[in-house]
Amino acid sequence: MVTSKSLNRRLLDAQYAVRGPIVIRAQQLEEEGRKIIYCNIGNPQALKQKPLSFLRQTLSLLEYPELLDKPDVLKHYHQDVVEKVKKILEQHPHGTGAYTQSTGIPFIRQAVADFIRQRDSIPTHRDRIILTDGASKGVQAVLIALLKEANDGFLIPIPQYPLYSASLTLYGGRQIGYFLDEQNSWQLSEEILKKSISQARKEGINPVGMVVINPGNPTGAVLSHDNIKMIIGFARQHNLSIIADEVYQENVYDPRERFHSFARVMNELQENGVSLFSLHSVSKGFLGECGHRGGYLELRSVPDDVVAQFVKLQSISLCANVSGQLATYLMVSPPKPGDQSYGEYVRERDDVLSSLKRKAEILGNGINQIEGMSVDIPQGAMYAFVRIVLPVGKDVDLSGMNSADRLAYDEKRDTEYCMQLLEKTGICVVPGSGFGQLPGTLHFRTTFLPPQDEIEEVVMKLKKFHEEYTKAEAVAL
Amino acid sequence: MVTSKSLNRRLLDAQYAVRGPIVIRAQQLEEEGRKIIYCNIGNPQALKQKPLSFLRQTLSLLEYPELLDKPDVLKHYHQDVVEKVKKILEQHPHGTGAYTQSTGIPFIRQAVADFIRQRDSIPTHRDRIILTDGASKGVQAVLIALLKEANDGFLIPIPQYPLYSASLTLYGGRQIGYFLDEQNSWQLSEEILKKSISQARKEGINPVGMVVINPGNPTGAVLSHDNIKMIIGFARQHNLSIIADEVYQENVYDPRERFHSFARVMNELQENGVSLFSLHSVSKGFLGECGHRGGYLELRSVPDDVVAQFVKLQSISLCANVSGQLATYLMVSPPKPGDQSYGEYVRERDDVLSSLKRKAEILGNGINQIEGMSVDIPQGAMYAFVRIVLPVGKDVDLSGMNSADRLAYDEKRDTEYCMQLLEKTGICVVPGSGFGQLPGTLHFRTTFLPPQDEIEEVVMKLKKFHEEYTKAEAVAL
Repeated sequence: MVTSKSLNRRLLDAQYAVRGPIVIRAQQLEEEGRKIIYCNIGNPQALKQKPLSFLRQTLSLLEYPELLDKPDVLKHYHQDVVEKVKKILEQHPHGTGAYTQSTGIPFIRQAVADFIRQRDSIPTHRDRIILTDGASKGVQAVLIALLKEANDGFLIPIPQYPLYSASLTLYGGRQIGYFLDEQNSWQLSEEILKKSISQARKEGINPVGMVVINPGNPTGAVLSHDNIKMIIGFARQHNLSIIADEVYQENVYDPRERFHSFARVMNELQENGVSLFSLHSVSKGFLGECGHRGGYLELRSVPDDVVAQFVKLQSISLCANVSGQLATYLMVSPPKPGDQSYGEYVRERDDVLSSLKRKAEILGNGINQIEGMSVDIPQGAMYAFVRIVLPVGKDVDLSGMNSADRLAYDEKRDTEYCMQLLEKTGICVVPGSGFGQLPGTLHFRTTFLPPQDEIEEVVMKLKKFHEEYTKAEAVAL
Repeated sequence: MVTSKSLNRRLLDAQYAVRGPIVIRAQQLEEEGRKIIYCNIGNPQALKQKPLSFLRQTLSLLEYPELLDKPDVLKHYHQDVVEKVKKILEQHPHGTGAYTQSTGIPFIRQAVADFIRQRDSIPTHRDRIILTDGASKGVQAVLIALLKEANDGFLIPIPQYPLYSASLTLYGGRQIGYFLDEQNSWQLSEEILKKSISQARKEGINPVGMVVINPGNPTGAVLSHDNIKMIIGFARQHNLSIIADEVYQENVYDPRERFHSFARVMNELQENGVSLFSLHSVSKGFLGECGHRGGYLELRSVPDDVVAQFVKLQSISLCANVSGQLATYLMVSPPKPGDQSYGEYVRERDDVLSSLKRKAEILGNGINQIEGMSVDIPQGAMYAFVRIVLPVGKDVDLSGMNSADRLAYDEKRDTEYCMQLLEKTGICVVPGSGFGQLPGTLHFRTTFLPPQDEIEEVVMKLKKFHEEYTKAEAVAL
C-alpha cells in the first residue's frame, strides 16, 4: 500500500495556506451551525455577488441550443445575446461538448488577441494565446516549461499569492523571495530586487524568471507605470522572463491609479528581448466566475519553437474546459453600445465595481481606526493585507532570534491570532505567514467581498476581538 | 529571451501522437478545403454524436437559474429536470460561478460514492472521491504524487494511450512497458508482466505502480475477470499501486463480455493491501461530453494522510470546473424509471451505444476483408488498433536490426503510411508507433465514432488506399 513516506517529497513540502487548516476548521464550525464569514478567498459568487446576466444567458443557450428554436423562450433573452449565440455556433458548431484545439477554440483566441490589441494598442497574434482552466493552470504551465535545472529559480514577491510558492515547490524550482515595500504602497523596489537576486546567486540559485502580481494579491496595490518600467529593465538586465499575473486588471478602485499591462509598457519601451507570460482570468474583475475556470495565457517575445512546446504541453491534457473558454470569450467580447443587453450589462458591471470600491474603503478606513491595526486602503484587486501589532511575551528574546527563528515565531503568532479570530467571531481570514512577510511584522489577508453589512460587521468584530486578544495576551505574557 | 534550449528537458522529450504532426497536417488540409474524416481522437460530439438532452437541459438551467421563474420556458423542460435543478441549487446555492471545495462539491462526491456502491456492491466513501477536470488531470495527480525518486517507474501497456507516456516523461518517471497480448485479444499476460518488471529492475528502475486501461485504448479490448484477478495478484506481489483507467466502462459492445471494475474484483478477493486509483470521465461512455472536462478519481486502500496530500494538491489549482463537476453528477445520477425524462434518456443512450456497436462491427468486419490488414472487432471503448502488413525494401536488412533500430524503422513506416493515407483519402488516423507496438508489427489506431455512412466510406477508402500503397511500395522498393 502507498504510504505518505513513499510520496513525492515536493508534494509533501508544498504549502497552500489559502485553503489550509484555518479554512478546514471554519468548514467544521459551519457544519456545527456557526455563521462563518469567509474572507479567506477571492470567491465573489460564494459571497453573494451575482453573475452577469449577459454571460449566463449566453452560456445557457450554448449548453442547450435547442432553445434557439423556441420563440417563447427567446423572448426572455436579449436579441443580441441570441445573435451572439448563433454566431458562436456558426464558428464553432461542436458547442460545449467536444474537445477543442489544444490551445483553445481559434475564434476565441482571435477575440482575446483583439481585446489585448484594443486595450494596449499593440500587435497581438491569436497563436500566442492559450486558453487555460483559470489562470492557475497557465502559471503552472510556464513554471513546468521554464524550470530546467534543479537550481533554477523564480523571483516571487513577499507577500505573494501562494499558488507561486506551492507550484515552485511542486515542480522543483527554487524560490527567490523579494519583499514588496510596505512603506511605499507595496510597490517593487529596485534595491530590494538587486539584493534578492545577488543573495540568490550567492546561494547557487540560477534565476530564470520573476513573478509580478498587478494589481497585487494579497496587497491590493496597483503598480505605477514607473515601477513597471523599472521591473522590465531589471528583467532585461538579468535575462529574466516575466510572469505577469494580471487577473485583477479590472479591479482598480482608486481614481488616481490605473492598470498598466506589462505588454503595453514593454511595447512603449520597444523592449523585445524579455519574454513575457501574462495571465488573465474570468474569476476576478466584475465577472467573478471562479467556478467556470476560464482564462488565458499570452506569450510575448517568445520564439516559435518555444510556443510549440507550450502547445504540446496543453495537448497532453487535451484542452481547457469549453464553458470556461466561452466565458473567456464573453469577457473579452462584451455587449457594445446599441446592443439590447448593453444597458443591463453596464449597470450590473458598475454595481459590482462600485460596491467593491465602497467595501474596500469601509474595510480600510474601519481597520485604520483600530489601535494596533493598519492597512493601505486597497487600490485594487480584492484583498487587504492588514498589519497587526501584538504584544510580545517578556520571556521571548526577539533580539536573540535569527531571521528564520523570527519567521517561525511570527508564523506561530499570526496563525494563533487568526484561529482565535475564527473561533471567537466566525471571521475566516488567512495569516500573513501564508503569503510571506518581513520578519518582525505580522499581518492577515482578508477579502472585501462579503456584502456591505457583513463588511461593517467584520470591522466591528475585528475591533472588539483585537482589543480583547491583545489585552488577554498582555496579561498572560 | 527564453529559447528552446532553456526549456525543461522533460517537456522537450514528451511525445503526444494523438495530436501530433499528422493531425496538424489534417487541420491544414481542412483549411484548404479538403474534407477530413477525423478518426484520430475519441471526440464523439465533434463527429456528430448528439449530446443527451437530459444533461444539457439540466446544465442550461444551472447556468441561468432565472429561467426557473418563467413558466413558459419551463414547459419545454421535463418536470424531473426542473426538480433536479432545484434540488441541486438547494444543496449548492452558488451554482456554477464559485470555487468549490478543492476536491469538489460534497453532494456530488456523495453521489459518485453511491454510484460506485451501486455498481459494485462495495462500501465507498465520498472523501475518497476527487472530482477532476476530465480523467487526464486525475492521472497526472496520481503520477505527481507517487513519483518520488528519479528511478521510480510505472508499468504501462504497449500499446497505451500516450497520456501515460507523456505524463511520465513530463513528471520525471520511468516507463516500464509491458506488451499486451495481441494473440489473446489484447489481454495482459502474467509472463510478459514478470519479464517486464524483472528487466526494469535490472535496469535500476524501481517500479511503484502500474497502469491498466480497461476497456482498452487503443485496443478496444475488455479485460476478463480472470485477467483482472491476475493483475491484482501481480500488483500485490510486487507492491505496486494500480491506476485503473476505466473511462470506457459503459462502452462494452460484445454481449459475451462485461466490464469488471478493479474495485469490485479487489473486494471479491478481500484484497486491501493494494492501493487503487481508479478513473472515470464524462467524455466517453454514451455522454461523450469531452468539452466539459468532468471526471473523478477514486482512492481505495490509501491511508488518510496520503488522501490529505491529494486534497492539498487539488487545492493548489483551486478546484475542477463546476460545469464539469455537475456533468459528472448527471452521469452518476441519471433519470429513474417513472421520471418524465426517463424514456427520452433511455432512447438517446441506447441509440448512441447501439450505433457504436454497429459501427465497431462494420469497421472491424470491413477491415478484416482487406488483404494485409487485420483487427479484433472492438469489444469496447471507441477504437480499433489495426494491424497492417507493408512490404519491406530489398535493401533493408531486418535481421541485422536490434530492437531499437527496428522500432525506429517501424515508426518511419507507419508514420509515412498514415501521412499518405491522410493526403490521399482525407482519413486522419494515428500511427501505431504513437501508442507503442511489438517491434516488427505495424498498426494504426482509428476510432469508429464518425457517422455510419462515413465509417463505410472509411472502409472502402482504406481498402483502395492500402492496395495501391502496398503495390506502389513493392514496385519502388
